[in-house]
Amino acid sequence: MGKENFVEQIADIEKDFPQWYTDVVLKTKLVDYGPVKGTMVIRPYGYAIWENIQKELDSRFKATGHENAYFPLLIPMSYFTKEAEHVEGFAPEVAVVTHAGGEELAEPLAVRPTSETIFGNMYSKWIQSYRDLPVLINQWANVMRWEKTTRPFLRTSEFLWQEGHTAHATEEEAVEETMKMLAVYKEFAENVLAIPVICGRKTEKEKFAGAVATYGMEAMMKDGKSLQSGTSHYLGQNFSKAFDIKFLDKDGAQKHAYTTSWGVSTRLIGALIMAHGDQRGLVLPPKVAPVQAVIVPIAAKKGGVVEKCQEVKALLEKAGVRTVLDDTDNSPGWKFNEWEMKGVPVRIEIGPRDIEAGKALLFRRDTLEKVECGLADVAKEVANLLQTIQVDMLDSARKRRDERIVYAKDMDGILKGVEGGNFVKAGWCGCRECEDKIKAQTAATSRVFAEGETSDKCAVCGKKAKHTVIFARAY
Amino acid sequence: MGKENFVEQIADIEKDFPQWYTDVVLKTKLVDYGPVKGTMVIRPYGYAIWENIQKELDSRFKATGHENAYFPLLIPMSYFTKEAEHVEGFAPEVAVVTHAGGEELAEPLAVRPTSETIFGNMYSKWIQSYRDLPVLINQWANVMRWEKTTRPFLRTSEFLWQEGHTAHATEEEAVEETMKMLAVYKEFAENVLAIPVICGRKTEKEKFAGAVATYGMEAMMKDGKSLQSGTSHYLGQNFSKAFDIKFLDKDGAQKHAYTTSWGVSTRLIGALIMAHGDQRGLVLPPKVAPVQAVIVPIAAKKGGVVEKCQEVKALLEKAGVRTVLDDTDNSPGWKFNEWEMKGVPVRIEIGPRDIEAGKALLFRRDTLEKVECGLADVAKEVANLLQTIQVDMLDSARKRRDERIVYAKDMDGILKGVEGGNFVKAGWCGCRECEDKIKAQTAATSRVFAEGETSDKCAVCGKKAKHTVIFARAY
Repeated sequence: MGKENFVEQIADIEKDFPQWYTDVVLKTKLVDYGPVKGTMVIRPYGYAIWENIQKELDSRFKATGHENAYFPLLIPMSYFTKEAEHVEGFAPEVAVVTHAGGEELAEPLAVRPTSETIFGNMYSKWIQSYRDLPVLINQWANVMRWEKTTRPFLRTSEFLWQEGHTAHATEEEAVEETMKMLAVYKEFAENVLAIPVICGRKTEKEKFAGAVATYGMEAMMKDGKSLQSGTSHYLGQNFSKAFDIKFLDKDGAQKHAYTTSWGVSTRLIGALIMAHGDQRGLVLPPKVAPVQAVIVPIAAKKGGVVEKCQEVKALLEKAGVRTVLDDTDNSPGWKFNEWEMKGVPVRIEIGPRDIEAGKALLFRRDTLEKVECGLADVAKEVANLLQTIQVDMLDSARKRRDERIVYAKDMDGILKGVEGGNFVKAGWCGCRECEDKIKAQTAATSRVFAEGETSDKCAVCGKKAKHTVIFARAY
Repeated sequence: MGKENFVEQIADIEKDFPQWYTDVVLKTKLVDYGPVKGTMVIRPYGYAIWENIQKELDSRFKATGHENAYFPLLIPMSYFTKEAEHVEGFAPEVAVVTHAGGEELAEPLAVRPTSETIFGNMYSKWIQSYRDLPVLINQWANVMRWEKTTRPFLRTSEFLWQEGHTAHATEEEAVEETMKMLAVYKEFAENVLAIPVICGRKTEKEKFAGAVATYGMEAMMKDGKSLQSGTSHYLGQNFSKAFDIKFLDKDGAQKHAYTTSWGVSTRLIGALIMAHGDQRGLVLPPKVAPVQAVIVPIAAKKGGVVEKCQEVKALLEKAGVRTVLDDTDNSPGWKFNEWEMKGVPVRIEIGPRDIEAGKALLFRRDTLEKVECGLADVAKEVANLLQTIQVDMLDSARKRRDERIVYAKDMDGILKGVEGGNFVKAGWCGCRECEDKIKAQTAATSRVFAEGETSDKCAVCGKKAKHTVIFARAY
């Protein structure tokens, strides 16, 4: 049996989660390391997941009135200094083009780490009147942030993302947009990625450099750590003042616009791996799985088996199921391991006895259960099963997470909570000092405010609590 | 009437084609200039065309067995020196990152001008055995080439493109791939962009730096100049030797793989504009038009007009027609001009008298003809008309082009030919000196070999001709 071979190759998920992650991303060929430190090559299997993510998100952006565009990669360094907090946050991470076309440039150019400044620059040119508002633009692009410690998908010097940048006539509309896109992300994370998320406002310390308010979407990984999976920023007039985005309002007055920005990235692939994966490898939710069903012929050399498998494949594809028929020379056991590692939601086994009995065996990657199904109904059954898996994966991820949300009243409680792999809810007075102390003593950071919950006292200083905060160790 | 306003704003297409182009791309909001010299912002209307191009091409790439991936933007400068011709061709145009994360880098990094080198580097790692071949990968990405003279879409320091990079076990397979992708491009250009193209091999002077052979796809613009709209390169073992892409073949021998690369870019949007546009602005083929039909209500304030237009819009959208209902306060004349300038293939006019008569007026952007149609049949009629326009646009572009292909026997004939806005076919001995002379004296370059055609003598030196070459002034 080849199964042991594979299982041995992947580090123990319980004992060494980081190594398990590295093993899984490399062995499943999602990604490889690029030649420049901190860069990654997203291989076809990983990129196919990203394409499915893009398709799902893009249709949601368009349904909410956004259009796509493409803004330049290179931004004059001077643009970053126009918004004081922004430059402080991003300048240390910027990669800089100093030479081009064989000459030294008059002004160094930043490879975009994010594009608020260049959108701001163009918006100030395009927006003149209230009639030009709102402007609702998204772009799919690569960005670069020079990081000291990198890991594929989670933190790389270059990554792919989408960044929405919108401008509005009123604060109310811009805040509404900020919250609307946060809700779009949440619905997408839960219904497409099958990852339950907690959304809420971030503290001043954790907010985006230049924002008035940042709202984050936090997902629990299998080791109990949190992964920030998306953010939506209300930027107020910070960037419209820095870049002079002004419009003539209905009342005849010149006003600065209110702007937002929001983004998710290839980090989401990391979230998928760590929220659902197990000892055998990836477990992919059907909606983003590049291959939704794999057919493995049993005793393939017996007459009629491969032909029947091809027939079934055609039926599945007609039913819209992304299907692979593995008719290679490898043993069935080897194939089982391979496709389980790759996280394919459903395996269909068809052998001579199955054909005789008019049956097929379906294997669910998420629960490892086997079910029989009539050969004539296989397309319908698999399509139904994929829907069931999609829903069940969210349910079980939610159950796992909810069992690991605990409350703490003091620092010791926070430490024990996060050491046990939990999200910890605790009261916080609102001061930076207490937030810093928690990080120093527990390695946990404030993730988001637990909206609607109140606590009596700050877990650190004992003063009156302003917010209930979710603390967790985070990627 | 507002029509004159618009027409006056766009420069005369006969008298000043370059200014006409600039006016059209800016006024239709396809594009704007970015803050860094030579960069462009692709605005939503332009980007929507690119999305349609991507969708059509991507499905063709996948149907021919290719997968998408994403390779890093930054490439160590030393990689470029590994292939001697390649570095000569690209080093002068490269933008270089020298600093990142607040420090000077040990090795400067090129912002990719093209990715043969980094694909080569990864392929040498991934390919070990003949079983690993072929590798058929494409990527959609931004690239950067620092150019002295730039024009939106045609030549910009940054542009978007796709680049296919494949590796094969034999020369035969690699050549087959090179020609297959050239054929894919040609079919796409003609059936989707409605642009007839001439495909053929390029001279040594004009080939890709590092290729064994480059095949180009040349399209005639309305001024008679040629636009290279796509290229497919057979790279032989040049890159596999430079990057050590070796595999163990069936016969037990270690061999170098044979590679290809092929690409098209946002230049294609420039091709669309200049192959089809007219004095009123853009003329977009239905398959890539962001808006395929615009409904303009006539006497919109009369009862029932806007409601009927909304009804028609719903029917059109149900029939899969990308439709806009222009119910703004502008006059019908203003709207006609606006949407004609934007190149929308079909305009539907509906007024009170039309409703009474159960009719609508359809206007074809390509021929400027009007046809009546029954209101009940409008969705079907428009869908049919869009198909007709798609075919007719290719036919008339082909007719225009074919009338402007001439033969020349000597330098004077070439000069007269290109000055008259023609593609000129002429014999060529095959030597660089004669090719250079033609460029120096006529500003025309050899575009591609006219496959299957033979000439007696070289138009320059009078020696025996090796090829018949298409010469043209080019973008």
